[in-house]
Amino acid sequence: MARTVEVTELALRDAHQSLLATRMALEDMVPACEDIDQAGYWSVECWGGATYDACIRFLNEDPWERLRTFRALMPNTRLQMLLRGQNLLGYRHYEDSVVDRFVDKAAENGMDVFRVFDALNDIRNLRRALEAVKRTGKHAEGTICYTISPLHTVDTFVEMAKRLQDLGCHSICIKDMAALLRPQPAFEIVKGIKQTCGEETLVHVHVHSTTGVTLVSLMKAIEAGADLVDTSISSLSLGPGHNPTEALVEMLEGTGFETRLDKSRLLKIKDHFARIRPRYAEFESKFVGVETEIFDSQIPGGMISNMESQLKQQGAGDRVKEVLAEVPKVRQVAGYPPLVTPSSQIVGTQAVFNVLMGPYKVLTGEFADLMLGYYGETIGPRDPEVTRLAAEHNKKPPITDRPADHLTPEWDDLVAKAAALDGCNGSDEDVLTYAMFPQVAPKFFAKRSEGPKNLGKDPVTAAAAAAAANPAVKAIDSRGPVT
Amino acid sequence: MARTVEVTELALRDAHQSLLATRMALEDMVPACEDIDQAGYWSVECWGGATYDACIRFLNEDPWERLRTFRALMPNTRLQMLLRGQNLLGYRHYEDSVVDRFVDKAAENGMDVFRVFDALNDIRNLRRALEAVKRTGKHAEGTICYTISPLHTVDTFVEMAKRLQDLGCHSICIKDMAALLRPQPAFEIVKGIKQTCGEETLVHVHVHSTTGVTLVSLMKAIEAGADLVDTSISSLSLGPGHNPTEALVEMLEGTGFETRLDKSRLLKIKDHFARIRPRYAEFESKFVGVETEIFDSQIPGGMISNMESQLKQQGAGDRVKEVLAEVPKVRQVAGYPPLVTPSSQIVGTQAVFNVLMGPYKVLTGEFADLMLGYYGETIGPRDPEVTRLAAEHNKKPPITDRPADHLTPEWDDLVAKAAALDGCNGSDEDVLTYAMFPQVAPKFFAKRSEGPKNLGKDPVTAAAAAAAANPAVKAIDSRGPVT
Ligand SMILES: [Co+2]
Ligand SMILES: [Co+2]
Repeated sequence: MARTVEVTELALRDAHQSLLATRMALEDMVPACEDIDQAGYWSVECWGGATYDACIRFLNEDPWERLRTFRALMPNTRLQMLLRGQNLLGYRHYEDSVVDRFVDKAAENGMDVFRVFDALNDIRNLRRALEAVKRTGKHAEGTICYTISPLHTVDTFVEMAKRLQDLGCHSICIKDMAALLRPQPAFEIVKGIKQTCGEETLVHVHVHSTTGVTLVSLMKAIEAGADLVDTSISSLSLGPGHNPTEALVEMLEGTGFETRLDKSRLLKIKDHFARIRPRYAEFESKFVGVETEIFDSQIPGGMISNMESQLKQQGAGDRVKEVLAEVPKVRQVAGYPPLVTPSSQIVGTQAVFNVLMGPYKVLTGEFADLMLGYYGETIGPRDPEVTRLAAEHNKKPPITDRPADHLTPEWDDLVAKAAALDGCNGSDEDVLTYAMFPQVAPKFFAKRSEGPKNLGKDPVTAAAAAAAANPAVKAIDSRGPVT
Repeated sequence: MARTVEVTELALRDAHQSLLATRMALEDMVPACEDIDQAGYWSVECWGGATYDACIRFLNEDPWERLRTFRALMPNTRLQMLLRGQNLLGYRHYEDSVVDRFVDKAAENGMDVFRVFDALNDIRNLRRALEAVKRTGKHAEGTICYTISPLHTVDTFVEMAKRLQDLGCHSICIKDMAALLRPQPAFEIVKGIKQTCGEETLVHVHVHSTTGVTLVSLMKAIEAGADLVDTSISSLSLGPGHNPTEALVEMLEGTGFETRLDKSRLLKIKDHFARIRPRYAEFESKFVGVETEIFDSQIPGGMISNMESQLKQQGAGDRVKEVLAEVPKVRQVAGYPPLVTPSSQIVGTQAVFNVLMGPYKVLTGEFADLMLGYYGETIGPRDPEVTRLAAEHNKKPPITDRPADHLTPEWDDLVAKAAALDGCNGSDEDVLTYAMFPQVAPKFFAKRSEGPKNLGKDPVTAAAAAAAANPAVKAIDSRGPVT
């Protein structure tokens, strides 16, 4: 009898984050929800930092209302979110009580599966969030950020999996945000986890398709025993996105593995998003092909485009290659962090500064914090001289304990500050929105009553407008962050 | 030690045929030739029916001159072509002496590897061409057209491989023009061939990427022992084209298999075609995503678009679904031919006629010939009643022997007819051009002296022109034939 491989659909979160700069409106997802709910997915990923941010920044949507809508429309399928450990959906560490509150509220509003990751793979930054999830009775998925460096080996990833298991995770995710996971390591890591943590340990594999090889990696991961894999419906797939769900189903035919997915439902979901996608043409990533150069630079595509736009703003658009060569050096100095939000932005920006101003002549506050341990521990040692410069720059000493232990209780303060904002409804949900996006939340609260703003445009209208503005219709580079 | 997998680069033939309606001018390939020649490919596919046709029909290029140019620019790499067996590069059967002449001339002008296929997998249609290739001392590759039907099994494909081996082929190609070859049958067929024909038998795998699963199929074919695989440089890959060459290289890392390809050369080839491709935007296939529905209809994407345009011409653009449902019925009636040029066009057109006029109320002459055995034998029996209608329609009886045995020597006649054309230079090459494309050759000969016509356009100019003509810039559906 064939072994069942379970599938997580990414169309509602990571797919449009990777392909359409996270701009898809809830309104354009709603018509697909019944088919998604009935298709036989294990879970549907539908919430995360970038979608939350885009909701309040661009779409005038309450992200909690989006979550409740998904819950109502998909009663038969697990809802899944991506959580940045102690960073929640924001860019700094939060004190533990805020972490607890966020997880409670997400669970209460309908979230089932919490994929919890830390950009540095520092287990201490995952622990509190995982514990909170377990306390709510929901599914706690501990995550390993996959990366390539001289220090990262199959063994180091398997060891991390063991530590996540020891924390009581319900499943272990291998998260390959940059499409660097080749078939052979995919096989070996999954095999290693199964051997070390037990065959019954649920292993979940998340890969992007940027390098063109990762559907093969999914096949090898499945052969090694992976239980759950992430894909996106074909009309929102490939490029910097993910492998197509339908291709996964077909790939397994006759192999002794099978999904539970209903192909006729998949076709409807595909057709829906094929109709919707052209409405977001102006947000399309311009990296739609296959980028194997990433294997050499180890720099995710989204990070390259961020660095390019920073360079252009400085009138140094021609220095991209120097910056690409600088990134691995900065990574070494910083102890080889994986490159994922927020470490990708921090390392990338410092590499730009090093090229423009000379190595470590100017530090960013965030990079200095990274060097000083305020984001957590890295796999390798950090450069002592640059650490010294960082301490000088940020006027504080390096730390070796858990960053969040340096924070004081902040919930009451956040409640008070949020309550003072025009349009804040005083709910814990609103306080959390303010806590995570203090710059954006005030404007969102003030304008929330105007209701959602769909940025999609009818393709004919959009093309006419673009043609009027500029005869050379060009793709706009506006990718979401890399997760 | 890792086993070497050899690679055929498709950029110069099948890739732009599949993605850019075969319109790429030699001028736009020349700058990549040195890098291709130095990259370590086993062969570079660069010639075939559609490119020959496009040369004389659209580009005012002499296809023989194109071949000689490739030969001069790529002295270190095998040049490879696709040959439709007894059809050569045309759409009818040629008498044996024309087949011999064509192969002699192609070899003389620099061709090294002849991939010989027949749309019906009728070995008798391959034999003469394969013998001619062997006589020239060049590489004779016997080809199995992969398809899915109730009668096609792993065993039937392996049996065909054995018969090709018995004909003395230097290698066996599994040709999957519609991207229907899933990983498991890829593994089983290659394994079966190796077991039946011997491990030393060279197995070459050609797959398209339309369904999104075939890079996995290449992995499985390689695991089963495939010696050579076909890919295309990433900037001319995916969609109805092929898997990216660079992804193949990266996929194999650490697996115990490796290519001989030089990644820095691949990057240069990629960059070259990434710059060139936008010049052919108006010829881009509009099917650029993943189309797994093909697994159910078994209809190659190019065939669907042909049928769609036929239906539109008849004011019946809304009846595509009926036609898609009719195709498998027509295939059954016709004995389950694979769907590849020319059988795909013949079956597709008859399906359109059946839907518009009623089943077999109107036959095309080609379909009647197919039913009567004038294209060769099919794997299954053909419907007797429709065969009777076909005999009536074409006023000739069914045959069971080799179609070309019914032809009389025609070379002298072709020479005489070609010589009478304005601008024909009297060479065997020109006679062959006339023989294969009698409608197009006269105009080509007359205008040849005007020199090549590059249809590529500077993207800015092209966009401005398109915007002026129509604000809703739309992709033009102009795919090449399916091979
Ligand atoms: Co992701
Ligand atoms: Co092909």
